[in-house]
Amino acid sequence: MGDPGSDLERYLEPRREERLASLKELLRIPSISALPEHVGDCRRSAEWVAADLRASGIEHVEVCETGGHPVVYGDWLHAEGAPTLVIYCHYDVQPVDPLDLWTDSPFEPTIRDGRILARGAADDKGQLHAHLRAIQALMATRGRLPVNVRYVFEGEEEIGSAHLDSWLDANRNRLAGDLAVISDTPFFQGNLPAITVGLRGLMYCQVDVIGPALDLHSGGFGGAVQNPANALAWILAGLKDPGGRVLVPGFYDDVVALEPGDRAGLAALPFDEAAFLAEAGAPALAGEAEFTVLERLGARPTLDVNGLWGGFQGEGSKTIIPAHAHAKVSCRLVANQDPERLFELVRARILELAPPGVKVDVRYLNGGRPSLTRIDHPGVRAAARALEVVFGRPPLYPREGGSIPVTASFESILGIPVVLMGFSNPDDNAHAPNESLVLANYEGGIRAVARMMDELASGELGGPGPSPRA
Amino acid sequence: MGDPGSDLERYLEPRREERLASLKELLRIPSISALPEHVGDCRRSAEWVAADLRASGIEHVEVCETGGHPVVYGDWLHAEGAPTLVIYCHYDVQPVDPLDLWTDSPFEPTIRDGRILARGAADDKGQLHAHLRAIQALMATRGRLPVNVRYVFEGEEEIGSAHLDSWLDANRNRLAGDLAVISDTPFFQGNLPAITVGLRGLMYCQVDVIGPALDLHSGGFGGAVQNPANALAWILAGLKDPGGRVLVPGFYDDVVALEPGDRAGLAALPFDEAAFLAEAGAPALAGEAEFTVLERLGARPTLDVNGLWGGFQGEGSKTIIPAHAHAKVSCRLVANQDPERLFELVRARILELAPPGVKVDVRYLNGGRPSLTRIDHPGVRAAARALEVVFGRPPLYPREGGSIPVTASFESILGIPVVLMGFSNPDDNAHAPNESLVLANYEGGIRAVARMMDELASGELGGPGPSPRA
Repeated sequence: MGDPGSDLERYLEPRREERLASLKELLRIPSISALPEHVGDCRRSAEWVAADLRASGIEHVEVCETGGHPVVYGDWLHAEGAPTLVIYCHYDVQPVDPLDLWTDSPFEPTIRDGRILARGAADDKGQLHAHLRAIQALMATRGRLPVNVRYVFEGEEEIGSAHLDSWLDANRNRLAGDLAVISDTPFFQGNLPAITVGLRGLMYCQVDVIGPALDLHSGGFGGAVQNPANALAWILAGLKDPGGRVLVPGFYDDVVALEPGDRAGLAALPFDEAAFLAEAGAPALAGEAEFTVLERLGARPTLDVNGLWGGFQGEGSKTIIPAHAHAKVSCRLVANQDPERLFELVRARILELAPPGVKVDVRYLNGGRPSLTRIDHPGVRAAARALEVVFGRPPLYPREGGSIPVTASFESILGIPVVLMGFSNPDDNAHAPNESLVLANYEGGIRAVARMMDELASGELGGPGPSPRA
Repeated sequence: MGDPGSDLERYLEPRREERLASLKELLRIPSISALPEHVGDCRRSAEWVAADLRASGIEHVEVCETGGHPVVYGDWLHAEGAPTLVIYCHYDVQPVDPLDLWTDSPFEPTIRDGRILARGAADDKGQLHAHLRAIQALMATRGRLPVNVRYVFEGEEEIGSAHLDSWLDANRNRLAGDLAVISDTPFFQGNLPAITVGLRGLMYCQVDVIGPALDLHSGGFGGAVQNPANALAWILAGLKDPGGRVLVPGFYDDVVALEPGDRAGLAALPFDEAAFLAEAGAPALAGEAEFTVLERLGARPTLDVNGLWGGFQGEGSKTIIPAHAHAKVSCRLVANQDPERLFELVRARILELAPPGVKVDVRYLNGGRPSLTRIDHPGVRAAARALEVVFGRPPLYPREGGSIPVTASFESILGIPVVLMGFSNPDDNAHAPNESLVLANYEGGIRAVARMMDELASGELGGPGPSPRA
């Protein structure tokens, strides 16, 4: 994987078990940012990461208050003349329901078939831990890092990075740098090394349809009052058609159209539609017929119902008109859609669709901007060389359907270009039961991070070194 | 209430507290027929009722196996020359969720403001218990009953009387009679005595929309796979329009049209629309504009979503495409709609509405036929005289929006006409949190049952007595 004769490799190779034990320790902390009962676990996770940074020799390590789950900051700024990287990962994880579909307990990591299984293994604690072990190895073998680094490890990525923007804004001075490296993206299908150059944004909201004060007997009232569950169905049905076209006026106004070159680039990727369908486990693929699957995922916005509920959900029958019904609705956005503007459009459409006889509320829960990166940026080129050396082939440059709101925030708030160098595999079940990370990706990730730092130390980014901006 | 000088009244009056203690005992048994964990409670409730019948001197009392929750049977056939009544109530109750909206524990009965509060107080244990105390009083004071009686106390009314028809069919011989009396209907709005002459039928089904094998990351897959929750919304939205018109082809084919006389009769009822709206606690009434509220409730079929669920239902956000989504859907039917035929129509419509990329199943859960009764039937007239004597005013003759499938079964399987003489109040919160029964209705119910028996003993129904049919 790495050069077997190097000091780094001699340090890393005998410490595999020790590393895995440490990764398991981090994975055991149920840092589910969405659930209030896990507030303490999120903080425990942050403290764990901070302690590990300190142990490796990172300086100014701090668990920073944000108003929500904390940000872990730390830096090492003694590589004079070398560029400064701002490195981002997140230590929070998705909820684990439906729990009964996990083959193992989500917070008791298990090794099987070359993977480590646990909630957060791929998204994103495994990737964060690869960074921790890269700097541990570099510091242990060389007593220094090739570049200056500032770490920003977040605890609210899975809930839309609610407090990150204001924290970034308030900490601009200590976040000055030349390049941001974000490790929270997957390789390409088939586990092929990849640098993601497009990310979708997100607008997430909740729809509450309120009818009678209590559940009503459907015999005594059915036909004479509006049913909130039926009303919710009319609303949701009116937001998107079965062909995947979103029916919200103005929804597509700001979408950057795919140029022929973009379409050719996406078409050239070795995408295996049958494997993607198998991974989805769905009866068939679906979506906008006039776009390819990769175009739909990377360059087209969506609208999905993430959850809905109301009334009787038990076994058998209960003859009620539910007092209320609810849905979580989110849109994946593409350049240059703005989440807050999109929320207003979706909200207006929902209120227009609401039938008489019920009250409808629409609440913005969170959002993030989409992002597009230039393939020819020196940071992207350094990451590409590191991946090629470690994983044995040049990376692909896909657009990813997911969202990492911080990408746009680094660009817009800190003015730093971003490289998305992540190490998970598309079949890792991120956000789903039985999440895992391929151990070879984890080990390669450690080497690729170190190698990228070496590439940047000597390469074109070699800038003025740390120079906090006002 | 009753004639204060009568033997019956002298027996009943000093025993109010004793009666209430007994009623509370019955209400404390959580006989929720829909939930498998309450199978034992349903049986316990049946045994309790059987023991009470025996204690009053009813004969051949038996807790009869049905394949589901048992039927309690008992008879007393020594009123030679008098007609035979088949008396029906049910001892099972609705589920209690949402539990947090109950002011008191649903199975710890509480007396407040002239009402007894508990699940089943009105629907239907309170009414069943009024029958038990009527015969107890008659047997205690006279040593006999004015008419022959056969009791059929069911345990599956709230789950569509799944096993009742086959039990009735298998027990035709011991169910011969001249008139069925069913006590499971409310008085008219304002607690005005009423004999219900129309009941709606029911068709209850479940829709399961199955998509990917697991919940998927909405970023990684959104736009390229069909979302089962969106698909469910399209399906439900396509079943009824916001104006209350059901969009299932053939749905209205068998509906008996309202004649001018029917409409005039319903229009003459002292219906207070504002009070009905207040009782519903909804922002406004809704439904088919070309029919009055009483027509919509009593003479028009409906389609309601009784519950729906899928995907993430927690606080905050989870960015998934749910693996599956589900709904409970039911129709209230009117004469002469057939539940099984309606199921086939609804199912065909649902499958037609299902978009590509998901699998859709539709399952029939239960159903019952609608019913219409002649106002001039001698049994109805005897019940009317009893109600007038006890409650001080002649009853009204509404059509009720609810369903009591057994009504149609008595008519079609046993060939016995049915009188619906019930004692609850429309504001009793049947099927909802904080169910209650007005104590004056319970006490009056006891007297009305006894009085109706006296009316029938000397009246036009005086038929050939018990004569089991082949």
